[in-house]
Amino acid sequence: MKKNLGSAGELFPQSVFIVASYDDDGVPNAMNVAWGGECTRNEICINIGDHKTTDNILARSAFTVAPADAAHVVEADYFGMATGRKTNKAEKSGLTFVKSEFVDAPVIEEFPLTMECTVKEVQDWGGEKRFIGKIVNTQVDESMLDADGDVDFDKMRPLIYDSTHRVYRVVGDVVGGAWDAGKALM
Amino acid sequence: MKKNLGSAGELFPQSVFIVASYDDDGVPNAMNVAWGGECTRNEICINIGDHKTTDNILARSAFTVAPADAAHVVEADYFGMATGRKTNKAEKSGLTFVKSEFVDAPVIEEFPLTMECTVKEVQDWGGEKRFIGKIVNTQVDESMLDADGDVDFDKMRPLIYDSTHRVYRVVGDVVGGAWDAGKALM
Repeated sequence: MKKNLGSAGELFPQSVFIVASYDDDGVPNAMNVAWGGECTRNEICINIGDHKTTDNILARSAFTVAPADAAHVVEADYFGMATGRKTNKAEKSGLTFVKSEFVDAPVIEEFPLTMECTVKEVQDWGGEKRFIGKIVNTQVDESMLDADGDVDFDKMRPLIYDSTHRVYRVVGDVVGGAWDAGKALM
Repeated sequence: MKKNLGSAGELFPQSVFIVASYDDDGVPNAMNVAWGGECTRNEICINIGDHKTTDNILARSAFTVAPADAAHVVEADYFGMATGRKTNKAEKSGLTFVKSEFVDAPVIEEFPLTMECTVKEVQDWGGEKRFIGKIVNTQVDESMLDADGDVDFDKMRPLIYDSTHRVYRVVGDVVGGAWDAGKALM
């Protein structure tokens, strides 16, 4: 039996992206963004309302995106609760913000993987901004790689935001191979 | 120790969206899309290259999006392997395509949750199209709801695409509450 829920579309696993940026004075900031995703292989899109991060990215034309991991769920959630307009979240989080080698934005050392982006385009979305970031470099902690040099999600344990129950979850078991499971119907 | 991977950004959990549409003759089709996500609470964005689905959406200005679930990993993967230009994938999949009550696109009955969308905007992305869909209605199978009427991912078991190992995974354990875990730092 199907039930209609109206036009709310928040009903599938979302990412937990930690977006880091500098303000005009070079003060680092970080926020937690659930609405975003990959546009193409080398672009990432994030939607942000009126936040300190929005001002920072417009000022510096750069940001970094780290998918939050289970080991830092407290810090990741904190970045979503506090506001950079009133608090130095970088300092209070205890995490290490260092200048990216490639873009004018900070990398948070403790997160296992970070995408370093320049702003390719800014779109208006009815009061929000949609930033299209060109990924200049992705850096990963070597301890997260498998024997083939690929990122191992069982080691990294990236978080997923379950919006219906407002909880963070990890990635679960493998249930099939891509370009493989479907062979049964080919 | 950090390693630079260059500009490839496909290194975080992606969705498995089954996008369904009709062609000019009313033949239903479905494809598997990993690049997409929520734009705002009532909009969904999907990036598609040159596919039958692209033609269909341009022709009908509508599509539906169902996050694939573990129970249908074979069909979901098949929709990504076969091409609608040469095959009637809807027929071959054995799934049930019915006309949406709200938009000019099919709903695949067996998927537990479907977002029914009209096209709000089409953007060009260097050879690909980025479709911005306005979610007109989201329908869900009542058996996927918890006692409060919220979607329960443990029941639904939506798939996530692990692009580094090209496998489908389910959503895993809860590791913290949103607007809760971070209180330790407030």
